Amino acid sequence: MRLRNKPWAERVIVENPQIVEPEPRKWRGKWNEIFGNNHPIHVEVGTGKGRFVTRLGEAHPEWNVIGVEKYDSVIITGVERLQENPQQNVRLLKEDVTELTEFFAPNEIDRLYINFTDPWPKNRHAKRRLTHEGYLKQYKEVLKETGEIHMKTDNQGLFEYSLESLSQFGFKLKNICLDLHKSDIQGNIMTEYEERYNKRGMKIYRVEAHL
Amino acid sequence: MRLRNKPWAERVIVENPQIVEPEPRKWRGKWNEIFGNNHPIHVEVGTGKGRFVTRLGEAHPEWNVIGVEKYDSVIITGVERLQENPQQNVRLLKEDVTELTEFFAPNEIDRLYINFTDPWPKNRHAKRRLTHEGYLKQYKEVLKETGEIHMKTDNQGLFEYSLESLSQFGFKLKNICLDLHKSDIQGNIMTEYEERYNKRGMKIYRVEAHL
Ligand SMILES: C[S@@+](CC[C@H](N)C(=O)[O-])C[C@H]1O[C@@H](n2cnc3c(N)ncnc32)[C@H](O)[C@@H]1O
Ligand SMILES: C[S@@+](CC[C@H](N)C(=O)[O-])C[C@H]1O[C@@H](n2cnc3c(N)ncnc32)[C@H](O)[C@@H]1O
Repeated sequence: MRLRNKPWAERVIVENPQIVEPEPRKWRGKWNEIFGNNHPIHVEVGTGKGRFVTRLGEAHPEWNVIGVEKYDSVIITGVERLQENPQQNVRLLKEDVTELTEFFAPNEIDRLYINFTDPWPKNRHAKRRLTHEGYLKQYKEVLKETGEIHMKTDNQGLFEYSLESLSQFGFKLKNICLDLHKSDIQGNIMTEYEERYNKRGMKIYRVEAHL
Repeated sequence: MRLRNKPWAERVIVENPQIVEPEPRKWRGKWNEIFGNNHPIHVEVGTGKGRFVTRLGEAHPEWNVIGVEKYDSVIITGVERLQENPQQNVRLLKEDVTELTEFFAPNEIDRLYINFTDPWPKNRHAKRRLTHEGYLKQYKEVLKETGEIHMKTDNQGLFEYSLESLSQFGFKLKNICLDLHKSDIQGNIMTEYEERYNKRGMKIYRVEAHL
């Protein structure tokens, strides 16, 4: 994600606490209070500009959707989207995924999405991949027993790595797809990156994992 | 595999019991006696014309290698290979893989290869795929606890299915490769089908599975 200098971003984020929750640690274990219902909670890690979470929330009013993105200059686009088109069941967190277990209690999340996450192709950077064992441990902690991880990427190396990492960690794999846009999948919601890569004719890989 | 009528095949097979073991059920649990040593046993299911097993045996005199193929007209080429170039550590079985547990005792096999097996693309034929749960049950029975399954295929649908099937059955996946001949894998031995597909520039998929 290219970072452009957007000095106004921080202010807009702070001024919209109903979109970007400023104190996620306070709501650990009680996100249902923020949303005012007990709907399932779906979280996207590394949300970027928020296309996916806003559309997911729109398509599924019966779910609560939270996107976690660490950069002001990126998340700001998601904030603008939600200003134009407010959605009660969508929240953004301007936070680092490494701290996920500080915002969510064990068994609080129904589904976790990892879309087009940075591949970190060098072996010595493997720990930074959002499907590295270190992250999977956190996901497992916050996911319900019946919870799922849904992952999409255009990156072959990251996909190979992630299948192995999920499998070795103890997740079981299903609905594996090595060319998403040539498959007969229903209800796919494209992310920003997905739109871009799909236009270029690149293959999209997808997998679902559960415990 | 196209089947040509080869009326002489059956005779050649029967006349070469040192190549195609005529009574595999007799050796269940004691293949080490046939080979005269305690080397690890590697089995390829759906061996076809025997290119892979003969080269594997040649490259690895420290392993015993058995290829299982049900058709006379196909296995005959493997017999001819081994007549020209005899190998003490390679045997063929003209048998159906559905009966695998009749030839091998629990924990007898170190590694099982499934190379370019028929994809059976229709859902109603899923049971015939050599990575269907029904087969995996048998593989698990004959494999050692430390045993592995190594699979290669050119077929995207079969590969997606097999990753899921292995994972759902309880195997863990490693060394997944979505484009084998562009990877840095060492010591790959090409099968007949692999040579053909690779020449056409088709991608080869590969996975290793263990318990
Ligand atoms: C390549 S972009 C993909 C964005 C979006 N998911 C999509 O598919 O269009 C990855 C995003 O993840 C964010 N990200 C990476 N690691 C993160 C972390 N540890 N915590 C929060 N965000 C992270 C990056 O800042 C970037 O915006
Ligand atoms: C597509 S060919 C591949 C041959 C070889 N493994 C290769 O990669 O070149 C599959 C072979 O598996 C054999 N086969 C399929 N199902 C089998 C079964 N249940 N028992 C024994 N052989 C089987 C077929 O007869 C055929 O020769």
